[in-house]
Amino acid sequence: MKISARNQLRGKVVEIVKGATTAHVRLDIGGSIVTSAITNAAVEELGLAVGQQAYAVVKASDVMIAVD
Amino acid sequence: MKISARNQLRGKVVEIVKGATTAHVRLDIGGSIVTSAITNAAVEELGLAVGQQAYAVVKASDVMIAVD
Amino acid sequence: MKISARNQLRGKVVEIVKGATTAHVRLDIGGSIVTSAITNAAVEELGLAVGQQAYAVVKASDVMIAVD
Amino acid sequence: MKISARNQLRGKVVEIVKGATTAHVRLDIGGSIVTSAITNAAVEELGLAVGQQAYAVVKASDVMIAVD
Amino acid sequence: MKISARNQLRGKVVEIVKGATTAHVRLDIGGSIVTSAITNAAVEELGLAVGQQAYAVVKASDVMIAVD
Amino acid sequence: MKISARNQLRGKVVEIVKGATTAHVRLDIGGSIVTSAITNAAVEELGLAVGQQAYAVVKASDVMIAVD
Repeated sequence: MKISARNQLRGKVVEIVKGATTAHVRLDIGGSIVTSAITNAAVEELGLAVGQQAYAVVKASDVMIAVD
Repeated sequence: MKISARNQLRGKVVEIVKGATTAHVRLDIGGSIVTSAITNAAVEELGLAVGQQAYAVVKASDVMIAVD
Repeated sequence: MKISARNQLRGKVVEIVKGATTAHVRLDIGGSIVTSAITNAAVEELGLAVGQQAYAVVKASDVMIAVD
Repeated sequence: MKISARNQLRGKVVEIVKGATTAHVRLDIGGSIVTSAITNAAVEELGLAVGQQAYAVVKASDVMIAVD
Repeated sequence: MKISARNQLRGKVVEIVKGATTAHVRLDIGGSIVTSAITNAAVEELGLAVGQQAYAVVKASDVMIAVD
Repeated sequence: MKISARNQLRGKVVEIVKGATTAHVRLDIGGSIVTSAITNAAVEELGLAVGQQAYAVVKASDVMIAVD
């Protein structure tokens, strides 16, 4: 499947914390940590595990810009 | 200002394309290109320019995970 | 690629309207029309065309519920 | 109340799972299951119950397009 | 229609700027200006006009918190 | 840090409810209550506490418009 989302950053899963319904998955992407909040169901369906290669996918309209 | 958004990735502005109301701003973040769709007004107010240091800011609930 | 987004609804592209930077793509999904706003660049990269099979993909945290 | 969100798909509530703060509500929309993550407070305020008619509401800018 | 979105702030439309596909609508909500980016189609369908009463509606998961 | 998000409404924290992974933070903004769903980690990192001044920050593309 190819998706329209402009941002698909490759990295490695470094942490998975499941909550009651929402999980937090952290990826190391070239040394930066990216945090994702997805459903527990998605974690299970994708079979996510620490150490695995994965992508952080973000739609362009969900990216803000900040300056110092 | 400190913001709750979990993802604040530092990079350099490499392209700014203004549309009628929506601009696309691209950042080079450690060699990966991140695309952001923000208002033209925001581009002007922040004084964004190619070559400038900036951050891509994304709320954790807007980050999806994908696997091959 | 498998993605964490819980909602991946299969349909057929019925309309593509490009703006200055943002395109509107409409899918017919079992008789309902779903409207998506994505970048012109994504329309081109996916090679989207009217009549084509495609999926509307939505993260669960972007779905609201309403009642009459 | 009429809302600007382009996508308002009618269906039936088939599952409600409450977490600590976030609930997952599933709708059957013409045979497809749509998953929504909303607050527990919203579930209570709308009086959502399995079997009830309801709408999945999604802003066009939150819909991505994918192709096989 | 009642919607799950936790934030429904009443105000008055003070500006509408249409782009090629995306419009910017500004509301005065108790003296604060709130900016919304919606489709031109939504502006037309709701019959939005400057001076009109309207609500800014935001899902709780789209609200970030910042401190000085 | 200055951020592109068009909406930065100043108010006072009136409630913080932590869940398993997701917290709900409520701000009183000129008499209106705004609800935010952010990570527990963000609540801790910002040191949020009831009574504190804070901003609700929302990207324009996440604001819908509704009329009666």
